Amino acid sequence: MKHFTSMNQLSTNDIYDILHTAEEYRSHNYKMNEQLFVANLFYEPSTRTKMSFVVAQKKLGLEILDFHAHESSTKKGESFYDTVKTYEAIGAQLLVVRHEDDDWYRAIEPYINIPMINAGAGQAEHPTQCLLDLLTIYQEFGCFEGLNIVIAGDIKHSRVAHSNAQALKRLGANVYLSAAPGFEDPSLDLPYVTMDEAVELCDVMMLLRIQHERHDQFNTQIHYLENFGLTKERERMMNEHAIILHPAPVNRDVEIDSALVECQRSRILKQMNNGVYARMAIMTTLFNNWGIINETAFEKRELLYHKQIGS
Amino acid sequence: MKHFTSMNQLSTNDIYDILHTAEEYRSHNYKMNEQLFVANLFYEPSTRTKMSFVVAQKKLGLEILDFHAHESSTKKGESFYDTVKTYEAIGAQLLVVRHEDDDWYRAIEPYINIPMINAGAGQAEHPTQCLLDLLTIYQEFGCFEGLNIVIAGDIKHSRVAHSNAQALKRLGANVYLSAAPGFEDPSLDLPYVTMDEAVELCDVMMLLRIQHERHDQFNTQIHYLENFGLTKERERMMNEHAIILHPAPVNRDVEIDSALVECQRSRILKQMNNGVYARMAIMTTLFNNWGIINETAFEKRELLYHKQIGS
Amino acid sequence: MKHFTSMNQLSTNDIYDILHTAEEYRSHNYKMNEQLFVANLFYEPSTRTKMSFVVAQKKLGLEILDFHAHESSTKKGESFYDTVKTYEAIGAQLLVVRHEDDDWYRAIEPYINIPMINAGAGQAEHPTQCLLDLLTIYQEFGCFEGLNIVIAGDIKHSRVAHSNAQALKRLGANVYLSAAPGFEDPSLDLPYVTMDEAVELCDVMMLLRIQHERHDQFNTQIHYLENFGLTKERERMMNEHAIILHPAPVNRDVEIDSALVECQRSRILKQMNNGVYARMAIMTTLFNNWGIINETAFEKRELLYHKQIGS
Repeated sequence: MKHFTSMNQLSTNDIYDILHTAEEYRSHNYKMNEQLFVANLFYEPSTRTKMSFVVAQKKLGLEILDFHAHESSTKKGESFYDTVKTYEAIGAQLLVVRHEDDDWYRAIEPYINIPMINAGAGQAEHPTQCLLDLLTIYQEFGCFEGLNIVIAGDIKHSRVAHSNAQALKRLGANVYLSAAPGFEDPSLDLPYVTMDEAVELCDVMMLLRIQHERHDQFNTQIHYLENFGLTKERERMMNEHAIILHPAPVNRDVEIDSALVECQRSRILKQMNNGVYARMAIMTTLFNNWGIINETAFEKRELLYHKQIGS
Repeated sequence: MKHFTSMNQLSTNDIYDILHTAEEYRSHNYKMNEQLFVANLFYEPSTRTKMSFVVAQKKLGLEILDFHAHESSTKKGESFYDTVKTYEAIGAQLLVVRHEDDDWYRAIEPYINIPMINAGAGQAEHPTQCLLDLLTIYQEFGCFEGLNIVIAGDIKHSRVAHSNAQALKRLGANVYLSAAPGFEDPSLDLPYVTMDEAVELCDVMMLLRIQHERHDQFNTQIHYLENFGLTKERERMMNEHAIILHPAPVNRDVEIDSALVECQRSRILKQMNNGVYARMAIMTTLFNNWGIINETAFEKRELLYHKQIGS
Repeated sequence: MKHFTSMNQLSTNDIYDILHTAEEYRSHNYKMNEQLFVANLFYEPSTRTKMSFVVAQKKLGLEILDFHAHESSTKKGESFYDTVKTYEAIGAQLLVVRHEDDDWYRAIEPYINIPMINAGAGQAEHPTQCLLDLLTIYQEFGCFEGLNIVIAGDIKHSRVAHSNAQALKRLGANVYLSAAPGFEDPSLDLPYVTMDEAVELCDVMMLLRIQHERHDQFNTQIHYLENFGLTKERERMMNEHAIILHPAPVNRDVEIDSALVECQRSRILKQMNNGVYARMAIMTTLFNNWGIINETAFEKRELLYHKQIGS
């Protein structure tokens, strides 16, 4: 794997390696001995993904090159490819890119000589979100085989759903989908369940964010929360050990009752925290694959002021 | 004190401790031995406050997480509370917040598990500006008791005025107000003086910025500078030792004649410089209060390339 | 030289010193032992110039203060001068400024007590771009004397052309200009050639970006590429050793056929890479001139993960 653009690039062994590396980064400080530059090119808004990449990069001791499209040569009409080549030319050794195109990497990949990570591609894939979701489930259950996982929400437009459904199935989980009419995705060959069925069968309830700011309309028109969301009543029907995931930002009282966002079975904040370690792991994996660093690249240190989030 | 949101939270002893700590930071380098993350969430424009926090953070060796509302999930409708929790979840150990709401911290305080600093709250308070003003006065006079201090300008809409008036009174200064009609604040029980009276009695002339970009209108309609501002003629009437403060940005030739901004008795640039050290002091005070750091957290070093600003 | 605002401030000896320093920085790591703050004030969009300054600053171990006009007190009407003084007051020890005014530095220079670097002034000068162009030519030919260099494009509106034409002439090169009607600059006393003549005589073809987003119009109206740009046919007529430069961003298929941007004789990406080292050199030159650092300020280290770009 030269670039990390899709979960399909990872074998199940690769996935477990990354999860174990992430866990190691959660419990110890690893800092580069050498100065390495990474560039974060976010063409779409982001808080969680961008900031957890930044924390991950700073924890590794990487130097960060920032990008603000509206203050850049993009304003002078520079193409995406030329911008990427510029960052490569001035010394970036890794690119993290969020872009509105489903396939932003496909046309440029052959010409880029540094690793690239997909931090969200249109409605297609969001593979680092998938890695942190997997990490959160793995921490909870220690495995994926046989787990009943429901992905619920706007399946059709969700890059998170696409990355997760494939990966979880491959890892041996029983994946179910739950969607309001019009939100189903015929490209995924997985069984659909209602939310009432979902809460009774699931070990993991993986909620999605309703995209495109269409939720106000939906909420009033079709009573989204009551019909398709996670209400307090439904939460009470869940198995004792079952957990709730959501990639956030949450539309409170649309996908999920606001009171449940930080309830005991919610792992939503834990997911954000795991995002840091999952992203550290994928970045160093790529550096290793490219021979940019080797085992001696790190200084391992004890954690002094370490805070454990969530359960 | 868990969060620093108002000067009222500090006892007079606390204030003197912070001033002494700030003075120590001005004369020696103190750098954290450990990697700590702070996030600067500025929902309103800022140059001085934000940049002096950044310099303060970098001097302490803190890692900075930046925030640009228009590039963040705020664009997707994420609430302020959810944004703050996100920064906490990904590892921020201190939040610095500027927000247009007078009470931005009140509703979220009970749910946030890291210290927060108010870097400007609507028209209510701007307590770190107050600390740097106090530091500037203390450097000049070595005390507050008995000093005659006039706060002049748009008292009603100024968060700087509100923070300063209370704190200075508590520290033993004689605080006077001077305001054009409509700029008085009935909530402050302090005597009003004209600018002509003010310049003759004051040791410290603390000018305010006219807010809301209303000054063009005022200036032409009511000859603001001549009637309510600090003219060259009035400056000549000031006591020999009296100094001029202004939180900046200055409206030149509105609150103050442009020629006086960097005059000999102006401490306006000195205030900016002091902002760095006052903010270092309040940040480490909160880290100490929370047990995030202890005395051994710092490496103290000699200053090599140190520049003293102002008098 | 206190501030670096124009190539005219550098003697030919100064220029060679800077080029040699830049080459030294390309082959070894030099990192400051001390914490020094620099501020990048870009009032106009930039990717290359800003990011290569950032990489240069991080390579030297400098602390960077960022500036975003739309989030700063510029929004409250603060003047450019007052913003610059603010950065000086809070501790910046070097300012890098890009501004739309040709003479942004002239009025403020006498009042600023830290070095300033011109990172692009209106249509007047872009001296650090000139330095990196010189470095690229020098790496290629080892000298400037007798080289035939054609500057081609919108000469009149190009700050790059103005900085380069003077400097190259002074260094002994034979400088020619090539421009479409209306793009000539009568203030430069240099011979004009057609593009067909240019490709046959030049050792260096220095293309310019058509400014002001006027190229769409031009391209269709006057067939810009065919008549005034570097086509594949013209490239074939160039001398075997001749190289192509362009400050970028490139208007593909306007100034230059898109297929030539990364052709064998293109040094466009190499220029970007050289920008990092040229900017390191000019920054440390100014620090030395001001006595802010001395020879012991650096820690020299071996490069471990070094990547050579271009030829």
